[in-house]
Amino acid sequence: MNGYWAVGVDLGATKLEVARVEWGGKVVDSIRTPAKVEGGPAAVERDIVEAARLLMERAGTAPLGIGVGVAGQIERQTGRVLFAPNLNWREVPLRADLEEALEMPAVVTNDVRAITWGEWLYGAGKGYDDVICLYVGTGIGGGVVSAGRVLSGRANSAGELGHIVIDMNGPPCTCGNRGCLEALASGWAIARQAQEMISLDPRAGSMLLAAAGGAAEAVSAKAVAQCAHRGDVLSLVLLDSVGRALTAGCVSLVNAFNPGRLVLGGGVIDGLPEMIDRVRRGVMRDALASASASCEIVPGMLGPGAGVVGAASLAMRAFGGEAEGPVGG
Amino acid sequence: MNGYWAVGVDLGATKLEVARVEWGGKVVDSIRTPAKVEGGPAAVERDIVEAARLLMERAGTAPLGIGVGVAGQIERQTGRVLFAPNLNWREVPLRADLEEALEMPAVVTNDVRAITWGEWLYGAGKGYDDVICLYVGTGIGGGVVSAGRVLSGRANSAGELGHIVIDMNGPPCTCGNRGCLEALASGWAIARQAQEMISLDPRAGSMLLAAAGGAAEAVSAKAVAQCAHRGDVLSLVLLDSVGRALTAGCVSLVNAFNPGRLVLGGGVIDGLPEMIDRVRRGVMRDALASASASCEIVPGMLGPGAGVVGAASLAMRAFGGEAEGPVGG
Repeated sequence: MNGYWAVGVDLGATKLEVARVEWGGKVVDSIRTPAKVEGGPAAVERDIVEAARLLMERAGTAPLGIGVGVAGQIERQTGRVLFAPNLNWREVPLRADLEEALEMPAVVTNDVRAITWGEWLYGAGKGYDDVICLYVGTGIGGGVVSAGRVLSGRANSAGELGHIVIDMNGPPCTCGNRGCLEALASGWAIARQAQEMISLDPRAGSMLLAAAGGAAEAVSAKAVAQCAHRGDVLSLVLLDSVGRALTAGCVSLVNAFNPGRLVLGGGVIDGLPEMIDRVRRGVMRDALASASASCEIVPGMLGPGAGVVGAASLAMRAFGGEAEGPVGG
Repeated sequence: MNGYWAVGVDLGATKLEVARVEWGGKVVDSIRTPAKVEGGPAAVERDIVEAARLLMERAGTAPLGIGVGVAGQIERQTGRVLFAPNLNWREVPLRADLEEALEMPAVVTNDVRAITWGEWLYGAGKGYDDVICLYVGTGIGGGVVSAGRVLSGRANSAGELGHIVIDMNGPPCTCGNRGCLEALASGWAIARQAQEMISLDPRAGSMLLAAAGGAAEAVSAKAVAQCAHRGDVLSLVLLDSVGRALTAGCVSLVNAFNPGRLVLGGGVIDGLPEMIDRVRRGVMRDALASASASCEIVPGMLGPGAGVVGAASLAMRAFGGEAEGPVGG
């Protein structure tokens, strides 16, 4: 399949990446722009189409199709974006729109599920039949491969791993429930907890406050990570509790799914790579030996390109005419 | 496949059931005895072999094979029982032993996974491709069907749903971790919490104490259920917290797996059927709408026979020479 390629798209709330990905998972050309969310779906779709056309022009060959990962709920059969809160999209027929504009087949999936495809086929999960990707960024998302298939669930919603409950008496989550993994260990939860700790004890929070230019509401997870690396006690205490929460969540996932590899990625993990070792030790201590003995906990290998690689791979598997069609999606 | 049948075996810590199960999931003959665990594996295996021979004699036809569900960890490739703490078994080559003694093919699986096969093929999960069985008895076990396959995981340990963490600061579990679903909502956890509450306030525990013949250490989950149904306040308070814990666990499962049916069964649920309604309402309130809208929460349909039906079905699928071979196991 040398020379074959697909367009991979990673559409988030703030940025859009459209890439030419070759069979084998290699990104050979890529266009990154801010996502023009304020212009509505039409503006974003126009940018995707223009970028895809530019990539085709530069390549001089036609792609097998286009694959898109979107931060939202996707209707699997139709490729409609049912709801993407961060994009403020509801009921957008993204697949149909792209197929019409580009005259090529399209496939649409959830953004973290696209990352899961990428890490599974070409990254940290390569060669394993049972893989979980847990992505800890502003929110927490996930994807699960079991027995060589990406799980989609009854309504294409499987893998909402940020919303497993790890502390039933814990703090409220944006989803309306309490004590979700995301409410304790995501970027937004780290920032919120830091802000609360600073307001309780401004002196203890002085380094964090300074890092945020003096405004408590500007304190971010990134600032917490940086201050912790400089020895700030408040940040270290907070990250200790984040480590405990991530461990509890990963123990649940290892016990429930028994993966061969648990891949950790996302902005929060990238800023706190030491967290992987911490979670690994915690899972080996706290999960059932029957499940943890066969599980390796590793960082993602594809970095921020995992989304475009995964989305394009899904398109190549769906439209490449290969015997190995897509299983899951 | 009329007339075809298999031997189904359900081997627990206290009882052994060996049944003749016809193609289609019907139990037509069954032998129940106490499990002679004190005699070691040889005594139990002898009882299984004798019961199977008696069933064959009564049937007048040979079965397609024998399927066994065991409360323990099974090595999938070999059918060895790696560890069954309640039977006090380690490294028992159950499949090989039965194949040799009975001269027929055998398949061995975990007991709750056998129940999951039964409920999925012939019971409350029939017709669904995405099903979770959560069995709440003395302990809590589970089984997961996703996209029409029973998940086994990397080391055949998938589905340890009693050991998802729902309260990371919660009470210790028998597994060594804290705050597992099993540590808050299983039969042993209900009994332990009742005993603690009685020791803190013997007057409030008087009805429970009387139900247990005056001995706090004899208070069981069954007694708690019975006293709650008679209006005992301590029992009602305790079961309220059990309901919250079960809800939190089921919310995690629905968000992670997005099943079309979540089947609740086991002795604790059988004694507290009202718990199903409670959990259903809680999941609809607390889980992500994208996951819960397509999920029905229902009681098991096969009752205590689910284990033999499931184990026999697995054997029929494995050895029936049908195109539809076993997927998962």
